[in-house]
Amino acid sequence: MNNSVIEHLLSRLYDLGIRDIFGVAGDYAFPIEDAICNGNSMRWIGNCNELNAAYAADGYARIKGMAALSTTFGVGELSAINAIAGSYAENLPIFHLVGMPASGVQKSKRLVHHTLGDGDFDVFYQLGQRLACAHTIMTPENCVTETERLITCALKERRPVYIGLPSDYALMPIQENRDNLSLTKQKSNKETLDKAVDAIKEKLIQSNNICVLPGILSKRLGFADKVQSFINKTGLPYATMFMDKSILSESNPHYVGMYDGKLMTPKVREFVENSEYVLGIGAMMTDFNTGSFTAKIAPEKFINIMPEHVEIDSTIYDSIYMEDVLSRLELILPYKDYNLIKVEGLGEPVLSDKGEITAQYLYPCLEKFFQPNDIIIAETGTSSMGLGFALLPEGAQFHNQTLWGSIGWATPAAFGAALAVPERRIILITGEGSHQLTVQEISQFARFGLKPIILVLNNDGYLIERLLCNYPEAYYNDLAQWNYHELPKAFGAKDWYCEKVTTIGQLDNALKTAGSVNTASYIEIVTGRYEASDLAQKLKESKDSLYSF
Amino acid sequence: MNNSVIEHLLSRLYDLGIRDIFGVAGDYAFPIEDAICNGNSMRWIGNCNELNAAYAADGYARIKGMAALSTTFGVGELSAINAIAGSYAENLPIFHLVGMPASGVQKSKRLVHHTLGDGDFDVFYQLGQRLACAHTIMTPENCVTETERLITCALKERRPVYIGLPSDYALMPIQENRDNLSLTKQKSNKETLDKAVDAIKEKLIQSNNICVLPGILSKRLGFADKVQSFINKTGLPYATMFMDKSILSESNPHYVGMYDGKLMTPKVREFVENSEYVLGIGAMMTDFNTGSFTAKIAPEKFINIMPEHVEIDSTIYDSIYMEDVLSRLELILPYKDYNLIKVEGLGEPVLSDKGEITAQYLYPCLEKFFQPNDIIIAETGTSSMGLGFALLPEGAQFHNQTLWGSIGWATPAAFGAALAVPERRIILITGEGSHQLTVQEISQFARFGLKPIILVLNNDGYLIERLLCNYPEAYYNDLAQWNYHELPKAFGAKDWYCEKVTTIGQLDNALKTAGSVNTASYIEIVTGRYEASDLAQKLKESKDSLYSF
Repeated sequence: MNNSVIEHLLSRLYDLGIRDIFGVAGDYAFPIEDAICNGNSMRWIGNCNELNAAYAADGYARIKGMAALSTTFGVGELSAINAIAGSYAENLPIFHLVGMPASGVQKSKRLVHHTLGDGDFDVFYQLGQRLACAHTIMTPENCVTETERLITCALKERRPVYIGLPSDYALMPIQENRDNLSLTKQKSNKETLDKAVDAIKEKLIQSNNICVLPGILSKRLGFADKVQSFINKTGLPYATMFMDKSILSESNPHYVGMYDGKLMTPKVREFVENSEYVLGIGAMMTDFNTGSFTAKIAPEKFINIMPEHVEIDSTIYDSIYMEDVLSRLELILPYKDYNLIKVEGLGEPVLSDKGEITAQYLYPCLEKFFQPNDIIIAETGTSSMGLGFALLPEGAQFHNQTLWGSIGWATPAAFGAALAVPERRIILITGEGSHQLTVQEISQFARFGLKPIILVLNNDGYLIERLLCNYPEAYYNDLAQWNYHELPKAFGAKDWYCEKVTTIGQLDNALKTAGSVNTASYIEIVTGRYEASDLAQKLKESKDSLYSF
Repeated sequence: MNNSVIEHLLSRLYDLGIRDIFGVAGDYAFPIEDAICNGNSMRWIGNCNELNAAYAADGYARIKGMAALSTTFGVGELSAINAIAGSYAENLPIFHLVGMPASGVQKSKRLVHHTLGDGDFDVFYQLGQRLACAHTIMTPENCVTETERLITCALKERRPVYIGLPSDYALMPIQENRDNLSLTKQKSNKETLDKAVDAIKEKLIQSNNICVLPGILSKRLGFADKVQSFINKTGLPYATMFMDKSILSESNPHYVGMYDGKLMTPKVREFVENSEYVLGIGAMMTDFNTGSFTAKIAPEKFINIMPEHVEIDSTIYDSIYMEDVLSRLELILPYKDYNLIKVEGLGEPVLSDKGEITAQYLYPCLEKFFQPNDIIIAETGTSSMGLGFALLPEGAQFHNQTLWGSIGWATPAAFGAALAVPERRIILITGEGSHQLTVQEISQFARFGLKPIILVLNNDGYLIERLLCNYPEAYYNDLAQWNYHELPKAFGAKDWYCEKVTTIGQLDNALKTAGSVNTASYIEIVTGRYEASDLAQKLKESKDSLYSF
């Protein structure tokens, strides 16, 4: 007998390498959950709520390249929608399986739970469509074809897809032949590819002053190794922007540092903007990537290799693919000793007068704490802005939701990342305001025996907002006062190392312990209300360029 | 000088009686938050996250009739959208103020944070529209007119409205005359009203066997007192369905009990279904209101007075309003001694052999614990199903999200309700699985000095799902194991009475203490994995009628 619709779908996700499905159980999704839990190839990861589940899937996809999520009709899918939008914005393929009422229930238009009470069973599907690069309602008749179409779309666009599964259809045997399942690979238009590569070669071949800006899209498409190999073979120097941090090694001799327009690292800015050519590879010129649009790269010197086109001096070469362009360039451009500058990190931690934890101590101290292959998940806000300029050891990864910037993302995303690579050290760094949104997900680290190092920066409010608004002491920047370091125990973590530190000495000791114990660690780091990283301060000074133009 | 756009909007919400605005601060919403916090008429209630904020607004609106919410662009509004959909489904007017990027930023189509990175600034507005009964983007030119239009719509439809406020427009002076602001009241079509009232009179005047089903829509429209007065003047008996519980007094001599089709209370079913006429007043025949559609009221005996029409024997009388119909009927129908049955509660708590806490002990025990004027917020699941059949003392209110049924709603909704009427006793009852979704909001009770009694039923998993799915012990029904009673302290509650009880004796003592202390209480009630209320058991037995037809 043929597989059922849900079995077929799960088997194809398995073929892609997906082993875990995040979600919250719900009655209309029982057939999905039963198939996962009764099968022996997939693991059900039951999160505390759907938003957290979808953030966790996002974090998992950042490590594994893709992820899967299951929610129930209406209430579940809508709770996840902000995280799905984030995965859409930041190019992460999430297979979102939504359990729907049975087809007969839908046709009856009766007033059942999880509906708006108006007999409309399409409304949530319509909402979900806008935040998916492809979408479908699965039936026994369309399941095989639609599964391939959605997988192809998800992997091409690197964005979420929406898969509605009416609960009766999910259990019916598929009605299509499933032979010859294979995903077609896109091919570049050869003529355009020749033209574009020639145009790039003509510009770059004579120059010794070039800077590459490897971008997040190259990483999302799975080409980070290919870009690194291109760099190593050509000797080209590279800087990275905020969203792109650590997609290539920061200990490579060709790395010159973080580029953030006029806001930060003036030497890097000078190097990038004075280069004869700047070669972007999947780079996006967003507000927080460009130092609030203070990055100024003259169009005539900017070449950007994007997933499906190349832009050279404002001319677009369409229908050519990043992978093909990189393969050709690697063969054409010879190794050279390009002009370089020496990369700089945050330097030595600066001791404070009274031993209080200052930004000048904290971030350099954390830079020293990082080890090769660490996975650092940094929340939107002053904390990530501080760590974004730390120089990372070999193999370390830095993840941040730079474009979507939804606070609360980091805590569940760190759980998703930890689940993806339990053998690696995961460091979550979050402000306490952001932590409040999704805090319960720390219980899942304990449930699954994971051992993250969680650093909660407590500066008594939403500090980035204090810096950016007109009334820093406005009441809306205040928070409920929690005893953060008591939370893991209440959330069921039995043997975690939990500490609250208010001085440099305590911080040093706590990090030392966290670095040596064989359990998870949770450190609440208390600083002054206005202890902000340099970038956060600079953003404050230039906030007009962020909010009005 | 004229008021600014945001000042004008807030002043009109103030005129309606709104004093609190729930939300999470965000940069694009600074003008909204500044106006609230710098003014002295409104209070900013900063929740832990946007979903919780919107649930809290929903709870507040259940008490006060309406509520206001503010979120920021994209990330904030999308996080709130599930709760907004719940308020839409359950007819609660929520004024949702969304802070948007400045008009110039939007026109530039630049890649700024909280966008999808595609230059589209309309997408979230488009999503929000579908879950609002009216929507607008405010400008200085349209602000006065649009404010009145949205208020009129919100109060007529009793559903959320979406108000987008570009951050520059929010601060500009309004450009319209604001004289003569007044909301127009709808008037029934007189001829149709006469016909409908005559038709009702003709049927009811001769009968002694009538049962009224007062429905949630009468409460939402603010007519609960009017319906109660109608009952008292006519002597008509009434039963209520689940979603409608407690909208009229349960200690009134005309109250006959809860009606839930074939599933529960057979005497009430017999009384309702054998009545010569059943008079609904804003009642909705949803799945959980009708005992999974086992309620059978013959169409020829059913009269339903809805907000804007009356249905008599399947004939619709349109464009007549509930208020007008009720006013007329009250004058026409004389007081009579109608046939009645005596209402029954849950009876005496049944002691268990070993002192463990059984459903047969728990729910009758809680029924006795309730006091006049208590506000009971019951989460979707076995706990609300148990308490739904408790007989409530005078003035007590029972709130449940019966149609939308989004687990996690109850905890923040209880906070919103407590904030609305801090002088009344608030009792939150929730299963531990649902509590996990939104647990951090308990910290807000402490922050605002509120003193709820929180009862967390811990039965080691999603019990209602164990009952309704095919594999009760499936892994997806399991949860991370928390130490619930330790949470309030970790969340900053300083002097709460917190207890974990596993026996009847401990439960009795804990409730006694909770009833007498002058602080908030948080009691974790541990029961067996399958200790379910009668209704939950009955739903299990009849689940086919819930999921497939």
